[in-house]
Amino acid sequence: MHVFFDNASTTPLDPAVVEVMTEAMYHNFGNPSSIHAQGRKARAAIEQARKTVARHLNASIGEIFFTSGGTEANNMALKGAVRHLGVSRIISSPTEHHCVLHSLDSLAKWEKVQIDYVRLDQHGQVDLTHLRELLAGSPLKTLVSLMHANNEIGSLIDLGEVSALCREYDALFHTDTVQTIGYYPIDLAANPVSFLSGSAHKFHGPKGIGFVYINSENQIGPYLDGGGQERNMRGGTENIYGILGLAKALDLAYDSLAERRAHITHLRDYMQERLQAECADMQFNGDPSQGHYKILSASFPASDKAELLLFNLDICGLSISGGSACSSGADAGSHVIAAIKPDDPRKTVRFSFSHLNTLEEVDFAIRCIKESLPAEQV
Amino acid sequence: MHVFFDNASTTPLDPAVVEVMTEAMYHNFGNPSSIHAQGRKARAAIEQARKTVARHLNASIGEIFFTSGGTEANNMALKGAVRHLGVSRIISSPTEHHCVLHSLDSLAKWEKVQIDYVRLDQHGQVDLTHLRELLAGSPLKTLVSLMHANNEIGSLIDLGEVSALCREYDALFHTDTVQTIGYYPIDLAANPVSFLSGSAHKFHGPKGIGFVYINSENQIGPYLDGGGQERNMRGGTENIYGILGLAKALDLAYDSLAERRAHITHLRDYMQERLQAECADMQFNGDPSQGHYKILSASFPASDKAELLLFNLDICGLSISGGSACSSGADAGSHVIAAIKPDDPRKTVRFSFSHLNTLEEVDFAIRCIKESLPAEQV
Repeated sequence: MHVFFDNASTTPLDPAVVEVMTEAMYHNFGNPSSIHAQGRKARAAIEQARKTVARHLNASIGEIFFTSGGTEANNMALKGAVRHLGVSRIISSPTEHHCVLHSLDSLAKWEKVQIDYVRLDQHGQVDLTHLRELLAGSPLKTLVSLMHANNEIGSLIDLGEVSALCREYDALFHTDTVQTIGYYPIDLAANPVSFLSGSAHKFHGPKGIGFVYINSENQIGPYLDGGGQERNMRGGTENIYGILGLAKALDLAYDSLAERRAHITHLRDYMQERLQAECADMQFNGDPSQGHYKILSASFPASDKAELLLFNLDICGLSISGGSACSSGADAGSHVIAAIKPDDPRKTVRFSFSHLNTLEEVDFAIRCIKESLPAEQV
Repeated sequence: MHVFFDNASTTPLDPAVVEVMTEAMYHNFGNPSSIHAQGRKARAAIEQARKTVARHLNASIGEIFFTSGGTEANNMALKGAVRHLGVSRIISSPTEHHCVLHSLDSLAKWEKVQIDYVRLDQHGQVDLTHLRELLAGSPLKTLVSLMHANNEIGSLIDLGEVSALCREYDALFHTDTVQTIGYYPIDLAANPVSFLSGSAHKFHGPKGIGFVYINSENQIGPYLDGGGQERNMRGGTENIYGILGLAKALDLAYDSLAERRAHITHLRDYMQERLQAECADMQFNGDPSQGHYKILSASFPASDKAELLLFNLDICGLSISGGSACSSGADAGSHVIAAIKPDDPRKTVRFSFSHLNTLEEVDFAIRCIKESLPAEQV
């Protein structure tokens, strides 16, 4: 048996998505910028996909721009806001994804942007009082960048609340929604944001494709300079198969959101109950009342065996991650856990679920975990 | 019948490439940054692909970085050279691809980089004497950016010659090889360059994937800030299916280069002969002695019917382009033709061929063209 509980790092492609992509790879190869028959066919398919994305977010099609993924989307939004909209200060949090944090480092270094970090509570939740103080405390043109759901511990912000606060102080608002697109309804007409990002491979679509939403009130320039693609906003021949796969995956995700959510929530709750019942001294990270239903961040007591937990679970056939995948290659530990629990000696791992997982897989995972922990803890 | 003679804008995917990609979409969905079984499987496949690319270019694997395509590769090289290597002057040509020209505009505007343009002859060939003068004429840290083959008229530079000239004057050398990767042998050990770019969809691979070669002597930073992917050089979860498709397409292209080249050259020559024989007052653009064998740029005498040529050929079932695809949506005319033949009233179109095209298709194309031209010209 092999169990994949690492669905916050990536998700298996839905076979219906692969079919759409394969069909396009065989039969829709034109360059969407070409004005002849093949070009128009490719263009029409892309614009249909754009309409799908816009519809699911209650946005207009002119506000959706396809990118190579969430990282490019976040780079484009943050760097474009500084370059083209006069932003000279960004308020963010220390638990953002590295593509945001490293973009901020880059903006601080090269563009002299002032970066302020909002306080978080022990659950990783943004201290909104502090955010208000920060917003009120500077005359600089400010952008707030806060992820919708944290990718390691699942803590969620209330988009409407942060959106209203930003508008009150005339600040721009960028939100990394890579973990929530396709998992939560997002209504951009009701809760306006300046920028938002999405990545197909987080919701059973392909890797290498994502999008950035740019509110039509904000006119930024391209981050990739090139041809007139994406209404002059993103040079580069469009990844048509990826775009069609993204739209198909998004349709499937939103069309079956309620069932998937119920199933995944059930799996996560069951996993948490079993861990709590069968392993000694468990702790869980994130906000128990407001956390992403697909993510369960668990801390095991420190021990030599805990240090080898990921390794031994992998041998057992259970794929999970410490921290996020994007930094796990380096095995540098989690900057998220370090931010909310500095000097915590415990071993934190992330279980993340999809609608494809089963209760039997949870049972298998629990068996693997019990075999991998010190005998006195199980 | 429908004939696609627009293979410089994009190419149909090879079915063997689609197979490799589909297989990976079904069975290799892991995040290559994950350390567990699925992650390692994805990582191994990507590194194998990187080895393939490096081998074909006689480069080392540490010099190949996958990107979302040629546009990102060129943006990354040019902007990285300015930001991280102290380049303050770039010598280029007015007939480069828009992703280079617009990156240069951006660097001139935002980074105060001095841009100098080398003179071209009437065939679009770089005046090497002028290039030498420009190189000798400034103490600024200089990068030369010249495309290997022009995408509209096919003019080629001699990589070895420009490489040697740049080294003589201690200048960096970036070359956009998007039209030549997979079509010409490129030996980077013999002809060193600082940066080079490739795009899979130009050689029967997928869209949305390309690579940048960065000579190990040049340490630049990432253009997309994010996780530690691509040895910290390019954030964003890797487009694994695209990467595997790129490597497969490159293998096929180089393994059958001689046969493909002979076939395509024959088609192009036959097309040129027939046009010359059967249409009045034809002109051809580019260097007859040193041009890319897949490209035939032809100018028809000015007339009302010539203005509608692309439109009528499309109706007839022949897909070709004026200018390049990347700018053809805007129908703004060709900046390449404008640079080498200012105020030319003639109608220029580009025929570009692949190994999948046939002599019968050329015959069909000639019939379409004759039907679309004024009666007195055919």
